[in-house]
Amino acid sequence: MTLDTLRTDADRLWATLSETARFGATGRGGLARLALGPADGQVRDWLVAEATALGCTVQVDPIGNIFATRAGSDPGRAPVACGSHLDTQPTGGRFDGILGVLAGLEVLRTLARHDVATAAPITLINWTNEEGSRFAPGLIGSSVHLGLLDLETALALHDGDGATMGGCLAEIGYAGSAPLGPWDFDSYFELHIEQGPVLEAGGLTIGVVTGAQGMRWYDIAVKGAGGHAGTVPMALRHDAMVAAADLVGRIRTLATARNRPAVATVGRIEIPGASRNTIPASALLTLDVRHPEAETLDAIEAGLAEVASQVGEAHGVRVEFGRVSNSPPVAFDPTCVGAVRTAALRCGYRHADIVSGAGHDACAVAGFLPTGMIFVPCKDGVSHQEHEDMTREDAAAGADVLLHAVLARAGVAA
Amino acid sequence: MTLDTLRTDADRLWATLSETARFGATGRGGLARLALGPADGQVRDWLVAEATALGCTVQVDPIGNIFATRAGSDPGRAPVACGSHLDTQPTGGRFDGILGVLAGLEVLRTLARHDVATAAPITLINWTNEEGSRFAPGLIGSSVHLGLLDLETALALHDGDGATMGGCLAEIGYAGSAPLGPWDFDSYFELHIEQGPVLEAGGLTIGVVTGAQGMRWYDIAVKGAGGHAGTVPMALRHDAMVAAADLVGRIRTLATARNRPAVATVGRIEIPGASRNTIPASALLTLDVRHPEAETLDAIEAGLAEVASQVGEAHGVRVEFGRVSNSPPVAFDPTCVGAVRTAALRCGYRHADIVSGAGHDACAVAGFLPTGMIFVPCKDGVSHQEHEDMTREDAAAGADVLLHAVLARAGVAA
Repeated sequence: MTLDTLRTDADRLWATLSETARFGATGRGGLARLALGPADGQVRDWLVAEATALGCTVQVDPIGNIFATRAGSDPGRAPVACGSHLDTQPTGGRFDGILGVLAGLEVLRTLARHDVATAAPITLINWTNEEGSRFAPGLIGSSVHLGLLDLETALALHDGDGATMGGCLAEIGYAGSAPLGPWDFDSYFELHIEQGPVLEAGGLTIGVVTGAQGMRWYDIAVKGAGGHAGTVPMALRHDAMVAAADLVGRIRTLATARNRPAVATVGRIEIPGASRNTIPASALLTLDVRHPEAETLDAIEAGLAEVASQVGEAHGVRVEFGRVSNSPPVAFDPTCVGAVRTAALRCGYRHADIVSGAGHDACAVAGFLPTGMIFVPCKDGVSHQEHEDMTREDAAAGADVLLHAVLARAGVAA
Repeated sequence: MTLDTLRTDADRLWATLSETARFGATGRGGLARLALGPADGQVRDWLVAEATALGCTVQVDPIGNIFATRAGSDPGRAPVACGSHLDTQPTGGRFDGILGVLAGLEVLRTLARHDVATAAPITLINWTNEEGSRFAPGLIGSSVHLGLLDLETALALHDGDGATMGGCLAEIGYAGSAPLGPWDFDSYFELHIEQGPVLEAGGLTIGVVTGAQGMRWYDIAVKGAGGHAGTVPMALRHDAMVAAADLVGRIRTLATARNRPAVATVGRIEIPGASRNTIPASALLTLDVRHPEAETLDAIEAGLAEVASQVGEAHGVRVEFGRVSNSPPVAFDPTCVGAVRTAALRCGYRHADIVSGAGHDACAVAGFLPTGMIFVPCKDGVSHQEHEDMTREDAAAGADVLLHAVLARAGVAA
């Protein structure tokens, strides 16, 4: 047989996705599989058992990342890694993160089923606490493994009930002893649902992820003047709500006036001391701006300063803003991106380049290893919700592309 | 002497305002004289003692309203009433309500000092719980007296600590036995600070209040679609925050496009489940609309329906609104309004007609008796705050106009 026609088993992958959704099932179609809780322990045990049954060597590092390695024929080759995370949001879905791990397992199962020996080993990774909803922030497993976050600091982090990561790792038996990294991997691939509507809207099956957007967070304060809702004429008002509303509209234009991938979101607004019959004296807003290029983020930030001053003048208020976080854009390795694109072509799936709007373990890994990501559509672009959904066909297509990208990188035994 | 040149004593009134501000003083220049609390009891005792010293007959009705009557020369004449309220907001000022009662006392003192006998009796009223901040709603004393609110219902109302109005009235000794009304008064006049910036901005001393605005309250819900702040392109969003912002701007235009007194205020906005990196799925807003004419309120409500549908279409969201309260406009009695205007002219104070944006006991009384109100400027239009302020001269001017309006109505003994 030629490896070009090798495909993963769509039914097996889908059955595995369904089967493992019992670990942390909410009963409403979603998962509450919080990092290092009992359900996370159960799905980890299940994964280790399955990988072991496939002949993999399983290692766990001190932050609980699981590495299941299928040997290659060439002892001198660094493993090609793939994976994602098995933890979910408190009312999360059945695919975010999970698909990447279970599709990696499906890749290993497919190679085993077809007796394919790769030259380089292949390592399936389950990263600890990607979501960051039980222990903040997210990406803790990959960050500690890569040396971006101190192990002791991470182990001391506690959830809302005071339980520490260290304690929880010990409790579920995943305080491992394998050394921290970054390990010497050849490369890393991560399959993930898009968490956005672009692929679905374009009738595409595969997103070839070229990188991840940069993200900047701002806090904005609008300071006007309060007053009695009945006694202050419109013309004499310095209404912080009206000014904030104007600002929200102008911020939207800052994003829509740029090239397409620019997004700007005012997620929160608070009116201190708000009352139904009081003119709002001040308003506090948050702003999340993302774009794949730092220059555009700079330009939007300059635009924000302009609209802040325009709104201030138009409404007789003061608008102040400050940047509270800055994640620079990530560009994935061109050869890994090429491997994903070639794999999609080989499998005949409609695909297009896409930039990730969300953060992933792959974004952290990309600073250390050649990295690529594969996106597949999710229904209505919804994620982090119990009704998060996708089709069996898209799940399998993603696994097929992961298989061929990994194969291209690992090579077949001589 | 001709009564035309009679004036109140500016120093005495100002000293009385300062002296009584010790009852409930917050120590930061304001008052916390909550209805029927110990400080309210103290200032009531003080008022009763002062009125009694002037020879007035004091009566208290079962809801604690105080009526201090200075006899007239004609036993067949109904008393001319004036007054306001001595209770304040939890961090209120020294003038809202208080000025109306103490200026009424100053009118009685001035008549006594100058031995002026009026034909009709004059009754000074202190209404219970105008503010409604301890026992909701406001205007309870006048509403019960007028038969608009059931006495038993009112006495059973309780504050945040479970204390009832009935219990508190008994505790401070103001559960009176005078019959409820509406009593047979000739008319009612109330002096009050404007609580808005119009008089100050116009360099005016006296506002001749022709009536009170109608007020309608609405709850508005904007229902869009949530999503990940990084992954949903701007063009595919149904952002409830952006739609709400657009709505706020259009609502402002609904008011500014009408004739001047129309005001519209979005006082509260809430984004359920708001998060910095999530596109808001829904937004809840409150709207307060006021205008002196019901027709204009109707037109604004029709405009609201239009902009709700426009915003819905423009942003692919659903906008629903419902009216949650409706206070019809109040027109004061033309002869009482004329008496106030003539009094201002006689005293030589710059004045203009004005419509009250806030609710007052006088608005309730106007449904039963010929009623008029006098406004005087307050600093920066501020009320319901500890730094609420006004000048001694404006306080005295208001008392002078009250004096001459009452005199015009009561007549001088033959």
